[in-house]
Amino acid sequence: MPRQVDHVQRRSEISAALWQVVSESGLEGLTLRSVAATAGCTTGMVTHYFRDKKALLAHARSVMHRRMADRIDAMPLRHSDPRAHLYAVAEQALPLDEERHLEAVVWSSFLLTTRTDQELLREHSVSHASWVRRLTTLVRAALPGEPEPGNLEERVRALVVCLDGLALNAVTDPDAYPPDLQRRVLERQLDLILEGNRTL
Amino acid sequence: MPRQVDHVQRRSEISAALWQVVSESGLEGLTLRSVAATAGCTTGMVTHYFRDKKALLAHARSVMHRRMADRIDAMPLRHSDPRAHLYAVAEQALPLDEERHLEAVVWSSFLLTTRTDQELLREHSVSHASWVRRLTTLVRAALPGEPEPGNLEERVRALVVCLDGLALNAVTDPDAYPPDLQRRVLERQLDLILEGNRTL
Repeated sequence: MPRQVDHVQRRSEISAALWQVVSESGLEGLTLRSVAATAGCTTGMVTHYFRDKKALLAHARSVMHRRMADRIDAMPLRHSDPRAHLYAVAEQALPLDEERHLEAVVWSSFLLTTRTDQELLREHSVSHASWVRRLTTLVRAALPGEPEPGNLEERVRALVVCLDGLALNAVTDPDAYPPDLQRRVLERQLDLILEGNRTL
Repeated sequence: MPRQVDHVQRRSEISAALWQVVSESGLEGLTLRSVAATAGCTTGMVTHYFRDKKALLAHARSVMHRRMADRIDAMPLRHSDPRAHLYAVAEQALPLDEERHLEAVVWSSFLLTTRTDQELLREHSVSHASWVRRLTTLVRAALPGEPEPGNLEERVRALVVCLDGLALNAVTDPDAYPPDLQRRVLERQLDLILEGNRTL
């Protein structure tokens, strides 16, 4: 099936070019033309796979999510230490290295497009809800007792927004939020949302 | 001094038009031309007060900061209840009503411009640092004991990034982060960063 392989290969090349464009100039530099130029093909070839700029945006975000999910799925389960497992998963959302910094740039740039685009907002809502569910399972496993549902939700949201705020600040001003500070704040936040259970 | 009054009046009208443009179409719709159209004047008149788009951006952000600072400065000091005072100040950064929602839109849109503009990054860094200092004073006052400096910093950062993450999510998907949830998460976060002190 040489043609099928060509298709997959070509789509993957365009996807890689798209990611490279975002890396170099952010979502604001992402156009059909810039992707074509980077991939060394025509704009028509790009539109064969991605019909418009919105499709490029959605693809950049889905690649970002897949990368993160792949890293998490590749982790060994650490039933013996649920807090360490929670930390390891949560940390995947922080721009602690070059790869995750780029992902955070795509994530934060994409977020602002949702304000004026219902379709992209739906994509965001679905994946955000799935992230919240994933963390809820892990937080519940790491808590010593069983909190009541509203209380558990508040703890999880406190973790989710902490990760988002850290990522946003680290993307905005990397010098003010270096990896070491991000890690310390995340550890502190886990202390807080897990230790807080003692007062239940 | 009629001419001086005209100047102040004119600048204030253009500033109001600028804010209205951002309200309706975000920072992405903010141009010298759109501000002139909304203010009912020529583009030349706008450039008389704001030399380029970057100056408009910086002005929108500084208006946002001044509004927030004015609200905080207008609050009565509540020395008798430092936690309530901390809550009241922190809440000013959350999009809990229409005015603050608009401020959060400007804030979050502005943040992404810092990635490619050193001058705007400096403006952001200075005001972010001043916000962190303000909250540090209030958190210290609300803590029952005196934590060691690194520990205090981590608590304050955990609060700052929680506020930022809440604001970002509420701007991105208001239905998923309604005011009630924002308030509960902020209360929870204050419980966490202040109660955690018991373990010191």
